[in-house]
Amino acid sequence: MLTISPFDSALYSTLLSDQEAGRYLGDDAQIRAMLQVEAQLALAQAENGLIPADAAQAIAQAAATVQITATSLAADTGTAGVPVPALVQALKHALPKEYARWVHFGATSQDIVDTALVLNCRELLTLYTTRLNQVIGQLVELASAHRNTLTAGRTRTQQAVPMCFGLKVANWLAPLLRQQQRLTELKPRLLKLQLAGAVGTLSAMQDHAVAITAALAQRLDLAVGQNWHTQRDSIVELANWLAMTTGLLGKMGQDWLLLGQTEVGEVTFTNGGGSSTMPQKCNPVSAELLVTLARHNAGQVGQMHQAMLHEHERSGSAWTLEWLVLPSMLMATAVALHHSSDALAHFQVNTEKMQANLGLYNGVIYAEAATFALADSMPRDQASALVKDACLQALSGERHLLELIHEHSGIELNLAQLQQRLLAGGATQNWLDDILLAARTA
Amino acid sequence: MLTISPFDSALYSTLLSDQEAGRYLGDDAQIRAMLQVEAQLALAQAENGLIPADAAQAIAQAAATVQITATSLAADTGTAGVPVPALVQALKHALPKEYARWVHFGATSQDIVDTALVLNCRELLTLYTTRLNQVIGQLVELASAHRNTLTAGRTRTQQAVPMCFGLKVANWLAPLLRQQQRLTELKPRLLKLQLAGAVGTLSAMQDHAVAITAALAQRLDLAVGQNWHTQRDSIVELANWLAMTTGLLGKMGQDWLLLGQTEVGEVTFTNGGGSSTMPQKCNPVSAELLVTLARHNAGQVGQMHQAMLHEHERSGSAWTLEWLVLPSMLMATAVALHHSSDALAHFQVNTEKMQANLGLYNGVIYAEAATFALADSMPRDQASALVKDACLQALSGERHLLELIHEHSGIELNLAQLQQRLLAGGATQNWLDDILLAARTA
Amino acid sequence: MLTISPFDSALYSTLLSDQEAGRYLGDDAQIRAMLQVEAQLALAQAENGLIPADAAQAIAQAAATVQITATSLAADTGTAGVPVPALVQALKHALPKEYARWVHFGATSQDIVDTALVLNCRELLTLYTTRLNQVIGQLVELASAHRNTLTAGRTRTQQAVPMCFGLKVANWLAPLLRQQQRLTELKPRLLKLQLAGAVGTLSAMQDHAVAITAALAQRLDLAVGQNWHTQRDSIVELANWLAMTTGLLGKMGQDWLLLGQTEVGEVTFTNGGGSSTMPQKCNPVSAELLVTLARHNAGQVGQMHQAMLHEHERSGSAWTLEWLVLPSMLMATAVALHHSSDALAHFQVNTEKMQANLGLYNGVIYAEAATFALADSMPRDQASALVKDACLQALSGERHLLELIHEHSGIELNLAQLQQRLLAGGATQNWLDDILLAARTA
Amino acid sequence: MLTISPFDSALYSTLLSDQEAGRYLGDDAQIRAMLQVEAQLALAQAENGLIPADAAQAIAQAAATVQITATSLAADTGTAGVPVPALVQALKHALPKEYARWVHFGATSQDIVDTALVLNCRELLTLYTTRLNQVIGQLVELASAHRNTLTAGRTRTQQAVPMCFGLKVANWLAPLLRQQQRLTELKPRLLKLQLAGAVGTLSAMQDHAVAITAALAQRLDLAVGQNWHTQRDSIVELANWLAMTTGLLGKMGQDWLLLGQTEVGEVTFTNGGGSSTMPQKCNPVSAELLVTLARHNAGQVGQMHQAMLHEHERSGSAWTLEWLVLPSMLMATAVALHHSSDALAHFQVNTEKMQANLGLYNGVIYAEAATFALADSMPRDQASALVKDACLQALSGERHLLELIHEHSGIELNLAQLQQRLLAGGATQNWLDDILLAARTA
Repeated sequence: MLTISPFDSALYSTLLSDQEAGRYLGDDAQIRAMLQVEAQLALAQAENGLIPADAAQAIAQAAATVQITATSLAADTGTAGVPVPALVQALKHALPKEYARWVHFGATSQDIVDTALVLNCRELLTLYTTRLNQVIGQLVELASAHRNTLTAGRTRTQQAVPMCFGLKVANWLAPLLRQQQRLTELKPRLLKLQLAGAVGTLSAMQDHAVAITAALAQRLDLAVGQNWHTQRDSIVELANWLAMTTGLLGKMGQDWLLLGQTEVGEVTFTNGGGSSTMPQKCNPVSAELLVTLARHNAGQVGQMHQAMLHEHERSGSAWTLEWLVLPSMLMATAVALHHSSDALAHFQVNTEKMQANLGLYNGVIYAEAATFALADSMPRDQASALVKDACLQALSGERHLLELIHEHSGIELNLAQLQQRLLAGGATQNWLDDILLAARTA
Repeated sequence: MLTISPFDSALYSTLLSDQEAGRYLGDDAQIRAMLQVEAQLALAQAENGLIPADAAQAIAQAAATVQITATSLAADTGTAGVPVPALVQALKHALPKEYARWVHFGATSQDIVDTALVLNCRELLTLYTTRLNQVIGQLVELASAHRNTLTAGRTRTQQAVPMCFGLKVANWLAPLLRQQQRLTELKPRLLKLQLAGAVGTLSAMQDHAVAITAALAQRLDLAVGQNWHTQRDSIVELANWLAMTTGLLGKMGQDWLLLGQTEVGEVTFTNGGGSSTMPQKCNPVSAELLVTLARHNAGQVGQMHQAMLHEHERSGSAWTLEWLVLPSMLMATAVALHHSSDALAHFQVNTEKMQANLGLYNGVIYAEAATFALADSMPRDQASALVKDACLQALSGERHLLELIHEHSGIELNLAQLQQRLLAGGATQNWLDDILLAARTA
Repeated sequence: MLTISPFDSALYSTLLSDQEAGRYLGDDAQIRAMLQVEAQLALAQAENGLIPADAAQAIAQAAATVQITATSLAADTGTAGVPVPALVQALKHALPKEYARWVHFGATSQDIVDTALVLNCRELLTLYTTRLNQVIGQLVELASAHRNTLTAGRTRTQQAVPMCFGLKVANWLAPLLRQQQRLTELKPRLLKLQLAGAVGTLSAMQDHAVAITAALAQRLDLAVGQNWHTQRDSIVELANWLAMTTGLLGKMGQDWLLLGQTEVGEVTFTNGGGSSTMPQKCNPVSAELLVTLARHNAGQVGQMHQAMLHEHERSGSAWTLEWLVLPSMLMATAVALHHSSDALAHFQVNTEKMQANLGLYNGVIYAEAATFALADSMPRDQASALVKDACLQALSGERHLLELIHEHSGIELNLAQLQQRLLAGGATQNWLDDILLAARTA
Repeated sequence: MLTISPFDSALYSTLLSDQEAGRYLGDDAQIRAMLQVEAQLALAQAENGLIPADAAQAIAQAAATVQITATSLAADTGTAGVPVPALVQALKHALPKEYARWVHFGATSQDIVDTALVLNCRELLTLYTTRLNQVIGQLVELASAHRNTLTAGRTRTQQAVPMCFGLKVANWLAPLLRQQQRLTELKPRLLKLQLAGAVGTLSAMQDHAVAITAALAQRLDLAVGQNWHTQRDSIVELANWLAMTTGLLGKMGQDWLLLGQTEVGEVTFTNGGGSSTMPQKCNPVSAELLVTLARHNAGQVGQMHQAMLHEHERSGSAWTLEWLVLPSMLMATAVALHHSSDALAHFQVNTEKMQANLGLYNGVIYAEAATFALADSMPRDQASALVKDACLQALSGERHLLELIHEHSGIELNLAQLQQRLLAGGATQNWLDDILLAARTA
């Protein structure tokens, strides 16, 4: 994997980076993957008679055992603008001269870097899938547990109409299922061999060119296809997927922050960051990070789109820009998935506070439900007018909406029944079922 | 369609906007689509017994005939932060009171705006498909016509190895085929009804909620599904597709600019902008715009990702941000496709200049090909060393590489044969065939 | 001013655009300013003997009276990629041939467009200054009115320590004063003549070149300097200023949204958008827009930085990108200033709710203040330990912190005195005075 | 300095990072600076009687000698979302209990992080100044050396009119002088103490609050002012400066790439990256990186603007976003300045190639100059018409413009004289003088 990661800092390691993802990001991961590509390339070339079989065996062996540190490649990487020449040189040094000459035969640096990138991405996609499934599983459980919990639906920062908290959870969950689908569609386009030689014609491999791409793709278990040196669409599609994933998790984190505010208090995290001088504080660090990582990836993804504008058969500028941007996006996504799952494992729903918040402003939030309930006993227009009047009184006065309705109409509406009606009515339970079913069968 | 378009200027109308796309962007398109949604909503509700049938008929009729101007809605839109309340008011004014009360029944503003957006997007996607197919067709023709044209492959701004110009064209083409595929995958996720009521439960439609969504979706020929008020992933996926499309066209435009430079001169546009005082100038306006629009959309797409962070059940901030960003992306894509097609219709390949440019620096660009050719008559190592020496001499001196090779080896290589070998060798013709076949069967 | 404005929609005109700013943005403003530049250029050239005086007079007269519509220039603008050739042609048509030939003599299109841009920017900067001063004045008043209002200071979404609401207001205000200072610094760099001819040498004006730049600059009351065709730093500095301004106002809007949430209720806007079906709702449209416009400009500003990468002496791509981005930033800033001022005129502070929110969680927010107060009567360590215990009890139990402290220590702390101490202590009043003084003397 | 740097990779260390700048970026630099702030804070507090003098001395001593590794702070940083609590804990561990309690007294984590950031920024600004001065010096020399070198001015990718290469260089230089000026303006706003306590009132320092800020500012040689916890304008102004600097250098790098293309060949870098298989290649790695870093910072700067939207008195989300973005911008700027200077030290101007390129298309680039020269001997209109005809003939035919003019008019124009006239005419030498003078006196 490309190695310029913004998460290498030890200091922030538990906050903004992730050891597991780190195995496929960073200097060592890139060197390891590049050596693997060089080894399999040699074997595929020998298989097709382009280079001697013993040379290929020796190269594969050396690639598996040679110790190459990033530091040792640094200086030559600086000169060449790409690490491959130095890597090839180091690999050659580990081989007798008659074999060394067949290392990297007919390939170009970008073939090695891009294929190594794809190999490490494959591992990361597996990691994302695992974590995404876990988050989905946690959300399924949470939504199921709260299909009968009523909470305030809020739009434009204001309480609007009561809604089922389980459905709110399902709304965090539903788009993640589409992300699974998008990942399935992306994979065959992304996990593709890059082997095209200096300008994308593979001319140095002569008549063996096509056969060698097939053989190498098979060895690396990658899709085979034509040159994509300057066709960065699938890499950018990956970046889009990453930013969409963190965006969706960021929206969830944003909601958690709002629900967890001191004055709202509907959600608490048992692992929040504390404050020694302010004992009441419990900072929702994971939720904050979800927002941070979402906004970061949203800023990074545009750079990936800018990097699509390669010139001719290779742009040093555009290609290098990817190295500065994509690794941080890959890490941010792993971290966001981790924090989502971790926070959900420490997620506490305060249903009493939800009830209390629904009761603010004397129950005017039940206006619509009360109208429907009254309409069982009188024309809807009359019900609507009556409730409207009661609402205005409730808002300005001291008494609860249902009390005022009783006073005006003689009809005593039951709050618990109204709430039950709100949970059962509309599309709530259907949609909740649909989403949970889709999640369970995904 | 959302109406805040950056392309409304008459001054730049032929440069940065497009009349055909404009039919689905802008105030009128949005009002028309919103009225259509209100009409079909009423009919679907009547069909399911939620509102009276005669009211629905009257609403549908009024929606089809009422004249509502953007200007008349402006003031109330400013107050409400969304145009629907004013629109509904205007529609109600066109109806008797007993019917008016059933307009927009149980819906929320966002249901109308989002569904109208989807309807206009559907038209735009059709337009994109048509234009994309046209560009693909032009590129197929261009690539086919130049499968035997040799040109300089260039990497990192430098001539590298000769390559087939047809393949270079095919490299512009290939990712556009993937864009067709991505569009096919996107459509069912994007072209989806939005109907969910105040907080996404559709509670006001009571037990009819699910049936009405099905009926309305069928009437509008849209996919049906759950609420996506705050699930903006498919809208963002659209934005990604737009930015990727302009990015790919921008890469092509960038190449055209470079190939058309005075000193390179391999490509000319017969419709370039002239200069009265500099008769030799022919400004590649279309190619420049492709780069501009690519970089613009690359900047816009990040904002769409930022806009994913809705708060709770609706964010006035995040949602409004979409209106400021998406229309310009939709228009930019239409314009970029138009300019691509237009430029290709005026595209002139100067094969003589390509030959001349290949001859710069005494033919050292043929070094690899010469080595392979010599290897027919001598060990490859020897051939390689001989060519290397000849190259250095050619670079510093006055004579052509082949002349020097002849002098050193006694072997007379034929330039035309070398070129033929370069066109036929490697993966060139296979990949070209693959891409053209895929394009023709797409 | 450049004319591709994303705010031309009539529908959203009162929401996202602004009539006053619109006078310096859009087709008409640009045409008017460009004609003014052509007129004054001719006069300056005549003054220096480069063109005949009667020609200059005729040109100036024609420029002042000719009616040129954007529509009439559109087609040729499309071909040339810039509106000036069509404008010059139209102006020439309004003149006898012997005068017409002196129109635009020796200038290049960019000279006209950029200088016209600067002229319109000057008007907009004046508008910004007026509005900024007004917002500052309103904030001064608000801060002054609330120097004795205690509210909860909140960090990381949690109540932390009580603070003076006036100081909170002053924190919105203080950076706006620095924006005034930055504007003063920017002006001489931005309000500068562009007159440099085809490639920036002004060669066509021969020996008169320098004198004519001086004369024209004086006529337009602009700074004079060298060519800045491809030196976009001051334009980008303007964009930075715009994005910083909307960013600062967006932070304020964000706070307003949070303070105005149903559950917080400390701030209300008397002009909020209502909801017919939800009588309790009052949507804080202006505050939402401040956040929207901040995030929009934050996304746009990066594109302006991308547009710095001109190629050679002029880049059609980079320059056109500015036209797509800067006008929306200029408008967004005008609109954000307008909404800030408008919202402040309808700003209601609910001090009772502030008090109530301070009382949540049994007064633990006063822990620090109580410790200091107790330390008057006992060693600080002891005070600190005592308060800590009381806090834990208050958090879990039913009683107020001060009651618990009384119980544990026998000391009866007075809430009003504690609050007074919080308002008077620390740096609050000093900093508030400093900021208000700076605002009043700015 | 904030420590999440995207440049920590050893592999790319000579390409995309910089050892000198690295001294003020990264874990160690941050820890060192934070300890320095804690030490000086204690001393300033003792000086003002808030804490005991011996405690302050002990804290300062411990801060200077304690060994704290980033790794040891990582876990607690992850929990708290900020490294300060762990750092304070570690520092306390190095002290006896009676002194330990006075560490970090009344401060908040952000006070320490932000002030440490400012301290490291100060060092980086000094580094930038040194490097900027060096680049300016090199450009002054280059411009001076080429005040009589004629080259093709190029607009919109096409040769336009000849111009002085020295002036082209001066156009890279001039905006860098304005960057020096902007830096001077920025410094007093940026290099400012942050000390404001939990919610920005410094209440825990009671009546000593203001005096301690003054004392600490003096000790750290920083400006003193009010709380700027959530007023990120000056940090963003720094980011703007960084992106503008890399943008200006990126424009220069872009020109270098274009001038160095195989077919243009006017500029060569003697330190370009080579290719073993393509001996003619010399990859302009430094120039490419300038473009990369410019586009990267242009993408990052928007994120810094997004991070302005703090909520209330501190946003964990917005603040953390800065840490992910600003360090890479600071490093990118150092690296871009380094590569600019390094490339200029290996910069080779090929004046012969410039002459050859001016001669392409039979000298039509001299059309304007020829017209002026002919106008010495005939009416300008006649001269103009004659040259226009000759140009068209030259463009289509085989002969040189001056030859054709001679044929049509009998007047023999001398190419060297024309070129001299182009170098001496217009504003060229004046502007060049102005810029060089400004650079030398800056």
